[in-house]
Amino acid sequence: MFLRNGWYSAIWSHELTDKPVGKTFLNEKVVLFRNDRGEVGALEDCCCHRAAPLSLGEVLGANLACGYHGLKFDVNGKCVEVPGQTDVPSGAKVRSYPVHEKNKVVWIWMGDPDKADTSKVPDMPWLSDPKWATTPGNLYVKSNYQFIIDNLLDLTHVSYVHRKTLAGDPREATTPTKTERLNDGVRVGRWMIDFVPPPLFAKAGNFTGKVDRWQHATWHPPGIVYLDVGCAKTGTGAPEGDRSQGISIWSSHLITPETEHSSHYMFCFARDFSLDDQQMSKLLFDGSKATFMEDVEFLEAVQTNRTGGTLDGLVHVTADAAQLQARRMLNAMIGAEQQA
Amino acid sequence: MFLRNGWYSAIWSHELTDKPVGKTFLNEKVVLFRNDRGEVGALEDCCCHRAAPLSLGEVLGANLACGYHGLKFDVNGKCVEVPGQTDVPSGAKVRSYPVHEKNKVVWIWMGDPDKADTSKVPDMPWLSDPKWATTPGNLYVKSNYQFIIDNLLDLTHVSYVHRKTLAGDPREATTPTKTERLNDGVRVGRWMIDFVPPPLFAKAGNFTGKVDRWQHATWHPPGIVYLDVGCAKTGTGAPEGDRSQGISIWSSHLITPETEHSSHYMFCFARDFSLDDQQMSKLLFDGSKATFMEDVEFLEAVQTNRTGGTLDGLVHVTADAAQLQARRMLNAMIGAEQQA
Amino acid sequence: MFLRNGWYSAIWSHELTDKPVGKTFLNEKVVLFRNDRGEVGALEDCCCHRAAPLSLGEVLGANLACGYHGLKFDVNGKCVEVPGQTDVPSGAKVRSYPVHEKNKVVWIWMGDPDKADTSKVPDMPWLSDPKWATTPGNLYVKSNYQFIIDNLLDLTHVSYVHRKTLAGDPREATTPTKTERLNDGVRVGRWMIDFVPPPLFAKAGNFTGKVDRWQHATWHPPGIVYLDVGCAKTGTGAPEGDRSQGISIWSSHLITPETEHSSHYMFCFARDFSLDDQQMSKLLFDGSKATFMEDVEFLEAVQTNRTGGTLDGLVHVTADAAQLQARRMLNAMIGAEQQA
Repeated sequence: MFLRNGWYSAIWSHELTDKPVGKTFLNEKVVLFRNDRGEVGALEDCCCHRAAPLSLGEVLGANLACGYHGLKFDVNGKCVEVPGQTDVPSGAKVRSYPVHEKNKVVWIWMGDPDKADTSKVPDMPWLSDPKWATTPGNLYVKSNYQFIIDNLLDLTHVSYVHRKTLAGDPREATTPTKTERLNDGVRVGRWMIDFVPPPLFAKAGNFTGKVDRWQHATWHPPGIVYLDVGCAKTGTGAPEGDRSQGISIWSSHLITPETEHSSHYMFCFARDFSLDDQQMSKLLFDGSKATFMEDVEFLEAVQTNRTGGTLDGLVHVTADAAQLQARRMLNAMIGAEQQA
Repeated sequence: MFLRNGWYSAIWSHELTDKPVGKTFLNEKVVLFRNDRGEVGALEDCCCHRAAPLSLGEVLGANLACGYHGLKFDVNGKCVEVPGQTDVPSGAKVRSYPVHEKNKVVWIWMGDPDKADTSKVPDMPWLSDPKWATTPGNLYVKSNYQFIIDNLLDLTHVSYVHRKTLAGDPREATTPTKTERLNDGVRVGRWMIDFVPPPLFAKAGNFTGKVDRWQHATWHPPGIVYLDVGCAKTGTGAPEGDRSQGISIWSSHLITPETEHSSHYMFCFARDFSLDDQQMSKLLFDGSKATFMEDVEFLEAVQTNRTGGTLDGLVHVTADAAQLQARRMLNAMIGAEQQA
Repeated sequence: MFLRNGWYSAIWSHELTDKPVGKTFLNEKVVLFRNDRGEVGALEDCCCHRAAPLSLGEVLGANLACGYHGLKFDVNGKCVEVPGQTDVPSGAKVRSYPVHEKNKVVWIWMGDPDKADTSKVPDMPWLSDPKWATTPGNLYVKSNYQFIIDNLLDLTHVSYVHRKTLAGDPREATTPTKTERLNDGVRVGRWMIDFVPPPLFAKAGNFTGKVDRWQHATWHPPGIVYLDVGCAKTGTGAPEGDRSQGISIWSSHLITPETEHSSHYMFCFARDFSLDDQQMSKLLFDGSKATFMEDVEFLEAVQTNRTGGTLDGLVHVTADAAQLQARRMLNAMIGAEQQA
C-alpha cells in the first residue's frame, strides 16, 4: 500500500544531466530526463508505439527521442514527431508525471496530477544552502519502505546494529526518547548529557572528552526523514541552544518505494563545519554509507520474514512510540485517499 | 499463443553430432539426438522411468540411453531395453516429435504428428548450396518470438537501433517500403538509389562511392524471416536485375519460441562473394552477431514492458504495415488451429 | 508433503558452536544455537518484536540476543529481557522446537512437541563411536527429499551415474537386490561374489585381486538412509560373517526437507580401518563428496521435470521395489498424521 498523492524524491538534481534515466516508483516504470532548456520531464518509460523503454533513447533538444524508431516526446509526454511520416497519429502520447525541483532534489508526484501542489514539497534548505557542505548518495534496498522509516524513527537500534560504528556510550541503549506528533509528521528525539562521543563524531569534531549529544528525527509523509544530530563539548550550553562549541549534521533520508518489497534510498549528510575539507567529505560519506549498509542487512532480512510490510502480530516496546505514530498517520492518509 | 502445426527450426545440422542436446520448444522440453545411422530423433526430454532428462544420457548405436538407469530408447521414443531385466514394461515409451532435415537445418513439428507434411518445410537453398558461403550462429533472446518477427519486418528501426553499425545514409530513416501479402507469408522491401553504403557493406564490397541498395524481407509462418539484402555500384542496373556489380547477402532468421517470453534465434548470413575468404566470414559473422545483439537489447526491454507479447493498445505508424499483416495472418492460423 | 512428527537431522554437533545458525526446515525458518551451558535451542528465526532473524544476533550467556534491538530469548523461546525498559511485554516469545543431540548430530522435531519422544531418535553409533573414523560433510540439493531417498535405495543407478567413480565390475548393473520391509523402515541389499572392486575401495583397502562385496541400505522415516558397504578378499568368509580380511564403511545420509523442492543433505563415511590416517580421511571425504555431486546433477534435473516430487504416471522396473516400499510407508504415515 502506497500513498499516491504525495511528493516522492525521484533523483538528485546533479544526477540528471543529458541522459535519460529509467526508474520504477510505486510499481510504475518512469523515465526522467532534462531537456536543453533545463526542464525536467517524468514520463511513462514505455513508448506508445512499440513499447520500448524511453530510457534507452536520447535527449534531442527539447524532447526525448525513442531509441527504437525515433519518435519524439516533449516533457509533457506528447509525441511531437514520427520519422518517415508527416502526421503524428492521434493518441500518440505517453503518461507524464508532475515534477518539481527543490533543494537539489527532483520530486515526483505519482498520484492525481490535479492535486500536485508544489508548495507542499518538503523544505530541506541544508541540502542546497552554501552554509552546509553535503555528501549525497544512493542505496537500493530490497525492503518495504515502511521498514526503512521504522528504522530511522527508532533511535535504540543504533546501540545494536551500529555498535561498531555509531554507538559511543553504553548508556545510549537505555536513554529514553520523546515523541511528538506534528500536523504533517512525527518527531522523536533525545539529549544525552556528558556522554562518550561515538567514533565518527569524535573524529569529525576533534572531541577528546565527554560531550552533550542530541538526536532529533523528523518524518514527513510519505517518505522523508531527516535527523538533526550532533554534539558539543559538555557544559558549553548546547541543550540551551548554544551549539558554538559543537558540530551539527543534518542527516537526510529520502525513501521512495520501488515496489512493495524494494525501495530507493537517497541519503545525505549536511554539515556546518569543515565546509571545504574534502577529507572530511570523504570521511562522512564513507562513514554514513557504511553505517546505512549495516541497516540494510537488517532491513532486507526483516523483509524476508514479513513480505507484507506490516507489523501485524508483532510485540511492541516503549521505544516504538514514534514509528507507531508515523505508521498510524500514514495508514490513515492512505485509507482516506483510497476511500475518496 | 503458439501455432503448433508448423515447422520450427530446432538446431543447425552441424551442431547435432554424437551427443544428445536438450532444448525447450513451445514450453516443452525436447532432447534431440542423431544415432549411428545418421537418423535424428526428437523425444520428450524426460525418461518415463524416473524422469531424468534424456539429454543427460548418451547415444549408444541406434538408441539414446538414459544416464540415470540405462534405459534405451529408439528414435521413435520406444523403450527397447531395461538393464537388469529381460522384459521391457508395457507403456515404457516417451513422446516423440516429427523431425525433418533440410538445408542444413533440423526442423521439428510440435503439433499433431499426422499433419506433419515435410513438403511444407520452407525452402532456403542458400543455406546449403555451395554457391553461397554461410556463417551460422545462435542467439538466446528473453523476448516473445512475435516481437522478434516484428523487428525483422520493420526496416526503419535500422536507422535508430543500428545507427552505429548498419545505417549508412540518413535518408534510410524515411525511405518508404512496399508490403505484399503472400499466400504463405508477408514480404516487405524497398530500393534506395544512389545512397551512401553502410559501413559493413562498404567494407565487404569495397565500395568507394554511392550504391543502389535493396532490402527485401520475407516472413513465412510461424518463425522464418529471410532478407535479401545487398547493394551495387549506382547506375549499373541492379534495380533492373543486373547484380553483377554488387554483392548479395541472404540474411536468414529462424525463430522458435522457447516459452511465451523467450526464444531461440538461429541466424545466418549467406553471401555470393569471397566464398573462400575466412577473413570475410569472420567479418560478417562478428558484424551480424554484434548487430543482432543491438536488437536483443530492445527486444528484451520491450518484453519487460509487454509481458503478454501483444501489441494491444499501442499506436501504429505507416512503417508497421508488414508486421501488422504478419501478425494478422499468424493469429488467424492460430485461431483456426485452436478452433479445430 | 512432509511428515511433521518425526526426528529430522538439523546440524552436525561440531558445527554448532558459539554463533547462532539459521536454516529452513519444512518451510519454516529456524535458528539453532548452543548457550554457555551447552544446551541447544531451536527457535523460530524471527524476533517477535520487529521480525529480524535471530540468526543475525549473538549468544550471550544462557540466551540468544537479537541483533536489531537486543531482546534476549532463552532456549525455550521466552523473552527474558528488553533493553531500555524493566518489564518484558506479555506475549513476548518465539516458537521453540524440541531438539535432541545424539551420535554427534542435533535432531529437531518439527511437529507436535507433545509427541516428541527422544527414544525414537535413530541409532547410528558409528557416527560417535571411537572405533570408527568419520568424515562428515554437507550438501544442499535443489530437489525434493523423496527423490534423494529414492536414489539412495536404488543400487542400480551406481553403474550409470557413478560409472567413473564407484562402479567396478560390469555385472553390478544386473546383480539383483533383495528388499525387506522393517517395522520402521525398509532395507535393500545384495552380495556380489568374486567381483572387481570399484576404484575407491581398491585404493582404500589395497585390494589387488577380486573381492566379495556387500551393499545393504536401510531407510528410517522420514529422512535417514545408511548403507553398510564394503568388500573382502574373495573366499575369506565375508558372506558368512567374517569381515576380518575386508574393509567396512557405514555411509550415512541424513536428509531434511528445506522446502518441497530443496533439501539439506548431511553425509558421512564412517570406516573401521586406517582410523588415524588423515590421507585416508581426505581420500574418502573427497571421494564421497565428488560421488554425491554426481547424484546431485540428476536429482536436480529430475526435480525440474517433476516439480511435485511424486512418481505419478512413471513406469516402474524390478529394481524399484525398495523405493516403492519406502514411499508407500512414508505416505501412509503422512496420511495418518494429516487425518489425526
